[in-house]
Amino acid sequence: MIVGIIGLGLIGGSMAIDLKRRGFAQTVLGVESEPVNAAAAEKIGLVDEVVTIEDCVRRSDIIVIAIPVGAAVGMLQSVLDMFRDNGWTDKTVIDTCSTKASIVRSVRYHPMRKRYVATHPMAGTEYSGPWAAVPNLFDGRACIFADSEESDRAALAGIEKLYDALNMRPTYMNAESHDVHTAYVSHISHITSFALALTVLDKEKDEKHIFDLASGGFSSTVRLAKSNADMWVPIFSQNRDNVLKVLDTYIEKIGEFRQAIEDYDSDRTRELIEQANKIKKIIR
Amino acid sequence: MIVGIIGLGLIGGSMAIDLKRRGFAQTVLGVESEPVNAAAAEKIGLVDEVVTIEDCVRRSDIIVIAIPVGAAVGMLQSVLDMFRDNGWTDKTVIDTCSTKASIVRSVRYHPMRKRYVATHPMAGTEYSGPWAAVPNLFDGRACIFADSEESDRAALAGIEKLYDALNMRPTYMNAESHDVHTAYVSHISHITSFALALTVLDKEKDEKHIFDLASGGFSSTVRLAKSNADMWVPIFSQNRDNVLKVLDTYIEKIGEFRQAIEDYDSDRTRELIEQANKIKKIIR
Repeated sequence: MIVGIIGLGLIGGSMAIDLKRRGFAQTVLGVESEPVNAAAAEKIGLVDEVVTIEDCVRRSDIIVIAIPVGAAVGMLQSVLDMFRDNGWTDKTVIDTCSTKASIVRSVRYHPMRKRYVATHPMAGTEYSGPWAAVPNLFDGRACIFADSEESDRAALAGIEKLYDALNMRPTYMNAESHDVHTAYVSHISHITSFALALTVLDKEKDEKHIFDLASGGFSSTVRLAKSNADMWVPIFSQNRDNVLKVLDTYIEKIGEFRQAIEDYDSDRTRELIEQANKIKKIIR
Repeated sequence: MIVGIIGLGLIGGSMAIDLKRRGFAQTVLGVESEPVNAAAAEKIGLVDEVVTIEDCVRRSDIIVIAIPVGAAVGMLQSVLDMFRDNGWTDKTVIDTCSTKASIVRSVRYHPMRKRYVATHPMAGTEYSGPWAAVPNLFDGRACIFADSEESDRAALAGIEKLYDALNMRPTYMNAESHDVHTAYVSHISHITSFALALTVLDKEKDEKHIFDLASGGFSSTVRLAKSNADMWVPIFSQNRDNVLKVLDTYIEKIGEFRQAIEDYDSDRTRELIEQANKIKKIIR
């Protein structure tokens, strides 16, 4: 099995490591448009060979698109076009993007649609680039298959094996539900972290030593604010409506807290905190 | 040296463990008003003996008040009154509360003020109660001494030794600055986590499986939402003005994000994210 990975960042690079060392892929080819990252990926030995997109698609059995979702939409189109133009009916292409509705919609009527499997491996760290790639990144995490009934059965089965090699838990849902759910459990928490960082950085202009005091709790809450703009700008744009809806609920909750504190309303503050504490039952 | 700890929760209990096993205290006495917690603390062996407040103050060289800041203000007053009434001039009392201005103000004119050292060991987890106590909780973290010039030199030196045994880094500042700084690097991040939990829990009423998808990033951001109301209600009340100021900046930043996303303004979204990314230089 030859796997070709387009985009050798955190996700693509980490996949390359585990698919190779766990024997799922005999050969891993990589495509990386950023020359510095390409050189790094070769130097680290993330992939067997860094090649052109054309070479990658021609030689690989499975092509993984692991680039930001804005660019991924065009890339998926190109890869499916190559399948069609060359009569390649055995190859499969997947994407790993964090929003699914718009990318799935973009190829709905493509004649090779069935050779595409839309997936979202829900793993990551706040770091990016080939240097951020690590072994075991995906172990035990959920992988969402979106609109999997639109894919050829054999193509789907091959990709299920790929994610099984990565030790992921498969979950199936339609692309729209995916985008609603991820707005709640992933996209919103990035915005709250970004805003927290901006708030504290604003203050830090005057108070150089404020961060000496940052506790472990603060570091944990602000961690996602290190996340990469290339990845997140297109996510917020493609999942705009869901994100705005969640953000409005969030702003309402923050407002309720603010009001209770302003009013010295200890009962109401306690009530809000105790409601929030219910998250204990759900998140370890 | 006998150390008496009033409040055998996360902070008091963790202090008890390390002060004893590191040899700073030959004996650790504990006071715990909650019978279930008192029984647990004795069973776990957190302290040598659970005693009454009167016994604790009479027998201890150093008294540590490690209860929520609302109750701590009254307790500090009582302990200093006992010092005065019994002519105990060698004992020292400290508190470990997360807000400092109001507790320091409350005893400003007490005749035994010099035997009080106001401290804030900046360590913790989102858990509470005697079961949450752990060894090494304080290692390497900052401990703030507030208005330390108001304390007797010998009393201060004794407390510096106590925190040295806990491996903490001492930092000195006035109580007002402390409260401003902690509003930024600690209090606000609890509110953002509480509000995030409330937002997602609201949604979860309809969508039972939403949390199957929660990524590591979400868990990290929402972690502080497990924090205890007994501790946090009085903090928000006592540090109300600073917290409201920070909260207003935060609401402004969230609003800027919302606007950029609503307007599909990718340049502005990117700008905000890249500004937020500067936190990388400061927080590991």
